[in-house]
Amino acid sequence: MAEVARLSGGPGAEIAPLAVALGDPAGIGPEIVARAWASRNEGPLVPPFFAIGDRRSIAAVWDGPIETLSTPSDAASVYGRALPLIQVDDPGDIVPGDPNLAGARCALDSLEIAVGLARTGSASGVVTGPVSKVQLYAIGFTYPGQTEFIAERCGLSAGNVVMMLAGPSLRTVPVTIHTALADVPRALTTELIVTRIRVAARALQRDFGIEHPRLAVAGLNPHAGESGTLGREELDIIGPALDTLRAEGLDIAGPMSADTMFHAEARARYDAAICMYHDQALIPIKTLDFNEGVNVTLGLPIVRTSPDHGTAFGIAGTGAANPAATCAAIRLASECAARRAAS
Amino acid sequence: MAEVARLSGGPGAEIAPLAVALGDPAGIGPEIVARAWASRNEGPLVPPFFAIGDRRSIAAVWDGPIETLSTPSDAASVYGRALPLIQVDDPGDIVPGDPNLAGARCALDSLEIAVGLARTGSASGVVTGPVSKVQLYAIGFTYPGQTEFIAERCGLSAGNVVMMLAGPSLRTVPVTIHTALADVPRALTTELIVTRIRVAARALQRDFGIEHPRLAVAGLNPHAGESGTLGREELDIIGPALDTLRAEGLDIAGPMSADTMFHAEARARYDAAICMYHDQALIPIKTLDFNEGVNVTLGLPIVRTSPDHGTAFGIAGTGAANPAATCAAIRLASECAARRAAS
Repeated sequence: MAEVARLSGGPGAEIAPLAVALGDPAGIGPEIVARAWASRNEGPLVPPFFAIGDRRSIAAVWDGPIETLSTPSDAASVYGRALPLIQVDDPGDIVPGDPNLAGARCALDSLEIAVGLARTGSASGVVTGPVSKVQLYAIGFTYPGQTEFIAERCGLSAGNVVMMLAGPSLRTVPVTIHTALADVPRALTTELIVTRIRVAARALQRDFGIEHPRLAVAGLNPHAGESGTLGREELDIIGPALDTLRAEGLDIAGPMSADTMFHAEARARYDAAICMYHDQALIPIKTLDFNEGVNVTLGLPIVRTSPDHGTAFGIAGTGAANPAATCAAIRLASECAARRAAS
Repeated sequence: MAEVARLSGGPGAEIAPLAVALGDPAGIGPEIVARAWASRNEGPLVPPFFAIGDRRSIAAVWDGPIETLSTPSDAASVYGRALPLIQVDDPGDIVPGDPNLAGARCALDSLEIAVGLARTGSASGVVTGPVSKVQLYAIGFTYPGQTEFIAERCGLSAGNVVMMLAGPSLRTVPVTIHTALADVPRALTTELIVTRIRVAARALQRDFGIEHPRLAVAGLNPHAGESGTLGREELDIIGPALDTLRAEGLDIAGPMSADTMFHAEARARYDAAICMYHDQALIPIKTLDFNEGVNVTLGLPIVRTSPDHGTAFGIAGTGAANPAATCAAIRLASECAARRAAS
């Protein structure tokens, strides 16, 4: 809470506000970001941020106060009375639930500006709202997703950043992500596992303030392969990676049976679970923390989080969207930014 | 509750008691079965059963009353005052936590007798305690596990029975079980999925009393393959299976993204989740219902359940074992048996 107090704009505030890119203006992004601002003093504090996107896309779905900023440094003084906004090029009329190419350009502009402001220090971190990849691809976006774009803008190869899903109950890190299941076994290498875990461990120290992170690593196969009778990846690929990392001093358990890693008693034994593939990491966190899951990009020079859900075009403009994950993403980004600033 | 009342041995009782095989006598089986009996009138009722195994293996870890039966039909009259037991051939001295071959023979005898009594109707169903496969293999047991043995004793091929994990929050059915992850994609066929789901749907009607079961089927790949961009099994294998089953009148949703199937709101939409592989089915249920997971074998002519955990040799005899899953397995077997008797 000490960090949050420092971020709230009172005397002694030292940290820039967060930049929150609204994502696709026809999705639920504008509404949930506005509602996150509206709930800033209710329950867990939502620390100072400014939105980046199109003012009309917010006004179409929310009737609270919005103030357009000329510079991010005005955000703190506006934050108490209105949602501070950096306006991007006007995308024209946006209909909630009905995405178009102008909206995709607006989403990309918002992302680009947010990352730029974080790179220069005018924002202490970036929270990215949900985008439509289909729409982005249609305007010529060549990255698999926002994460790869951000990595490249930060001068990093996407292979060097790591995705973490963080919720109130659990943190998980998938080693492979958007890989067809049949391709997962050959995508897993000892080197890849070592790299991912090193990045995750460093981020747990730097961004999460866990000096000696405890990591639990899942096996790939049922019962972690049962000593090789149900698959050899634990013995041939994962085990050697963990040996290397233990020799570097990391606190690592595994490879473990994935099915018994995620109940409450097991979760108490580690700070993050390293998983071999998408669903192994995402099933437990979405089962436990469906409405509050935050996607954190580890290994970047800037802080970046996002709510772990999509544009939900089907409910955009209906008031049904849940802002909890966006609030959680903003809070977590703020905590990480405060830890980086203090270190 | 109507069924449970009928099972409790009062006037009008029509259903035979359950046979509970203790499993490996050096594991936690004897203790948790005895404690299930001791808790028969606390909380959710544990309906009449008799244990099958070695009396001394219980007495070594529990100091309650045990009465050896000469026939299962005496179980109901004994149940109120003592744990009714069918004694198998004496395995000699058994040390909790230290399994041996005589214990494995005892476990196999217990299983064989339990199944035989259920086949003849002297028991209304079978609950099997945890065994050590390593020990069973050492005495010449040739089945992958107890389930395949039971299927064969019932005259069925193991391929025609289906495993379900059932807990208070969720029921899941894995289409493939003890298959290395790299082998899962080629083990999945349209025919296999159709067969498994037919058996599951029939069992939900017959054993669980759900007249029109709603089934949710997981995809294999991240985001259920995203229309083929992250793997084609949903389009080529799973989809056609679901088309066949829908044409037969089954209520089936999917193939769905596995990661978003298991939060509370999603679970309310189906009666059972059909999963493509071991961890996809077992991660969610063990995350949610770790201490109360019941393994149910569907498609058998007899009712069979077991607590979804192992022998836990490491804590056998220490009093640390949790009998909740055994109590749940006995209750569920009793409910299924009552439904079969009433149909």
